[in-house]
Amino acid sequence: MKNICLLGATGSIGEQTLDVIKAHDDKFQLTAMSFGKNAEKAAEIIETFKPKYVSVGDEHTYEALKQHSFSYTFKTGIGEESLIEAAVSPEADVVVNALVGSVGLLPTLKAMEHKKTVALANKETLVTAGHIVKEHAQTYDVPLLPVDSEHSAIFQALQGENPKHIKRLIVTASGGSFRDRTRQELEGVTVEEALNHPNWSMGAKITIDSATMMNKGLEVIEAHWLFDLPYDRIDVLLHKESIIHSMVEFHDRSVIAQLGTPDMRVPIQYALSYPERLPFDEAKSLELWEVGQLNFAQADFERFRCLQFAYESGKIGGTMPTVLNAANEEAVAAFLSGRISFLRIEDIIEKALERHQVIAKPSLQEIREVDKDARKFVQTLLT
Amino acid sequence: MKNICLLGATGSIGEQTLDVIKAHDDKFQLTAMSFGKNAEKAAEIIETFKPKYVSVGDEHTYEALKQHSFSYTFKTGIGEESLIEAAVSPEADVVVNALVGSVGLLPTLKAMEHKKTVALANKETLVTAGHIVKEHAQTYDVPLLPVDSEHSAIFQALQGENPKHIKRLIVTASGGSFRDRTRQELEGVTVEEALNHPNWSMGAKITIDSATMMNKGLEVIEAHWLFDLPYDRIDVLLHKESIIHSMVEFHDRSVIAQLGTPDMRVPIQYALSYPERLPFDEAKSLELWEVGQLNFAQADFERFRCLQFAYESGKIGGTMPTVLNAANEEAVAAFLSGRISFLRIEDIIEKALERHQVIAKPSLQEIREVDKDARKFVQTLLT
Repeated sequence: MKNICLLGATGSIGEQTLDVIKAHDDKFQLTAMSFGKNAEKAAEIIETFKPKYVSVGDEHTYEALKQHSFSYTFKTGIGEESLIEAAVSPEADVVVNALVGSVGLLPTLKAMEHKKTVALANKETLVTAGHIVKEHAQTYDVPLLPVDSEHSAIFQALQGENPKHIKRLIVTASGGSFRDRTRQELEGVTVEEALNHPNWSMGAKITIDSATMMNKGLEVIEAHWLFDLPYDRIDVLLHKESIIHSMVEFHDRSVIAQLGTPDMRVPIQYALSYPERLPFDEAKSLELWEVGQLNFAQADFERFRCLQFAYESGKIGGTMPTVLNAANEEAVAAFLSGRISFLRIEDIIEKALERHQVIAKPSLQEIREVDKDARKFVQTLLT
Repeated sequence: MKNICLLGATGSIGEQTLDVIKAHDDKFQLTAMSFGKNAEKAAEIIETFKPKYVSVGDEHTYEALKQHSFSYTFKTGIGEESLIEAAVSPEADVVVNALVGSVGLLPTLKAMEHKKTVALANKETLVTAGHIVKEHAQTYDVPLLPVDSEHSAIFQALQGENPKHIKRLIVTASGGSFRDRTRQELEGVTVEEALNHPNWSMGAKITIDSATMMNKGLEVIEAHWLFDLPYDRIDVLLHKESIIHSMVEFHDRSVIAQLGTPDMRVPIQYALSYPERLPFDEAKSLELWEVGQLNFAQADFERFRCLQFAYESGKIGGTMPTVLNAANEEAVAAFLSGRISFLRIEDIIEKALERHQVIAKPSLQEIREVDKDARKFVQTLLT
């Protein structure tokens, strides 16, 4: 039996992680969880999975949760410190970090210090502090497992292989909601249009990141840290069907790929069951003759400026990816709340990157300060 | 340094194996070889690679080879017995069996008895005597490595995986020279048309087998033995671009595939270098955006009757696949020499299968007799 701590239980990845735990209740058990604001949904999860510890986003939500009655007693905590308490809870073997945003960083580090296996769905952890996270994983000798379908695909393709034989990684990208539109056609698109992703059912922030391709850019930075490869050996390939989830080319020109019908529960389960594979009859078998055709195209860095920003920030390194990520979070939030247009997301990020003075090997404290500063700067652009 | 014995050096696979050996002359060295009739080409190979032992197809060819002068001395042998002598030559670490037809069986078994790693490109070895070959590999505890691109793809996809987690194998098929023609349109096709394979440069026999899909049928039987799976867990998928070389679906619905530009030297090199991968700059990197599109369709068992025959023969087992293979070899030879039409290949195989009384667990002797008998029967149909 593996004991799971799930950070971000009420989000999209959280929900699908719970599906996997439920499908294998003889193998997995939820012992700790966190959620942000959705007390209604959290109450249901708590009653179903009976975790011993629950971290709640804020006081107000905590009060809402208290309105529900439960058939058992469990410990609770509030705010960021309680995320760490959940992550280091003694029972947990695996911490699934499905938090959104840079709030995911500290719980990852603390979980590692307590020798937990971390299954990472939180991009910002590696994007903003890749050097610290990798060092931590080595120092504390704990596995860092990808949950994202792309990184899981690469991780699966690398099983039984010698990393020295890698020529390059090929990260596939659906191109998001607006993949068939020109830049001109992006003027004036609505939030509703942007949220309508063709292949994956995901949260709002990541769906917008998918439409700008910032999502892919962050994944490239993540892949750089997860698989220890320079940026010129990580390619992005447009593949609108999202059937090939990513690939590895080896130096003998062999390419190993992981494929499947788009279903996040498959990579989530792989991270939980690793190094085993468990049956998963709930997911649909891939029948390529039904799909008929897979399409591929080059990723256009002028059409998708965020992808360009991400490669540049990644190559510069230091605190640059932190600014990239913070500016993007703020800009996407502003777009989602109707304050700015879709294309202004890119302009805002560009301005934030341009003004930033890079710190080469930032401490956690410096990362946090740069993050705050970048967010403040973006707010000045919005007023 | 790995010492290689190459059986079938002047054929298509043989030639490409020599390319690989030449590209890595610091890793591989040819110590023994065989060839059938092409003394001219063999003389060149001998002078270039300087093997210590050379097996020649027949007396006549031996006389032709003797007309050439060589800068060093080497041992020679003639006929089938000398194939075995080459296969068990003391220096050889790896025996590449690139013989065409059921003549490949005995050298494989003898090489195993002498603890050689066998890299198998000869389909008939497993098709006609899968049960004996598998038992031999276990008894003598020697690796049996696939060379065929499809089986190499499956073998690569299985690296680092637990075979118990396999749900099914998906063997891809280009569909051969006539993939876009209906059965009606196959009446009266010429040998030249049949030999014009769209993706792979191969020998004549295998190119015809590709056009009838018997090639794929034999590969399914081979996969059954190589990977120890029942026939209902081996699927054939039409994929005309031959970019995905085959796939494995695991029970968690993840599919692992091996891809590449069609180049037999890649799987050949993998078999020679296994478990390492060596750089292979001579082969072209796969750029899927250049390919643009991959297409898939169901394999039609009525359109491709040989595929149906192969599955049925494989399921019946015993000596049935031996008849399938022998009748096919004779029928294809008759087509190549202009004695029968393309569609009669299928009719002949069907007749040979229908009349055969299966021996369930045949000995090597029984397989040889059934093989001869089936060939004789086909000859009676041709007169």
